[in-house]
Amino acid sequence: MAQEAVLFREALGEVLRAERMRRGLTLRELSGRARISLGYISEVERGQKEASSELLASLCEALEIGLGTVLRVVSDNIVAAERAEFGAPITLPVGANSGDVVASAA
Amino acid sequence: MAQEAVLFREALGEVLRAERMRRGLTLRELSGRARISLGYISEVERGQKEASSELLASLCEALEIGLGTVLRVVSDNIVAAERAEFGAPITLPVGANSGDVVASAA
Repeated sequence: MAQEAVLFREALGEVLRAERMRRGLTLRELSGRARISLGYISEVERGQKEASSELLASLCEALEIGLGTVLRVVSDNIVAAERAEFGAPITLPVGANSGDVVASAA
Repeated sequence: MAQEAVLFREALGEVLRAERMRRGLTLRELSGRARISLGYISEVERGQKEASSELLASLCEALEIGLGTVLRVVSDNIVAAERAEFGAPITLPVGANSGDVVASAA
């Protein structure tokens, strides 16, 4: 099975990092807001550590974004990656409207 | 803070259980397919245990459903719950400018 499945924690980490940067927050600032250690957040953002559901809720609260919204973007990105895996390369930048999906030529 | 936030593992467990039942699979059958212990799957479905990303991928594969699709349903459910919690539907798509953030009255 050649399934190079996207791992949830990696897709989640990317979205959390993008959201932090969009807000112009440093890791240290987010760490202070969320009362979660800087190292832990950094590992979560890099997809190296699973975030517990409680920690994820705290991060979303500190980022002032709903968990549902974060997961929606994660799911969109994973769906795009899954499609790309099956032939047609599709790039879906975080934050793009679904209408913006660009399929690049193979 | 009266935040009764929906926990990711609970929302995920509900969706995974619903998908297993839709497929008419018993816990034992899914356990065999996914090569994950029955007790572990049961705890994940009840939202009592966090599923690691690798385990989640295996469960999705055994259920023959994409991870992106699972997360999409989870995010829809959480968004619906968040709206219900706050009364007035507020949507804040990721990618919105930070100027779009609506501050709720204290």
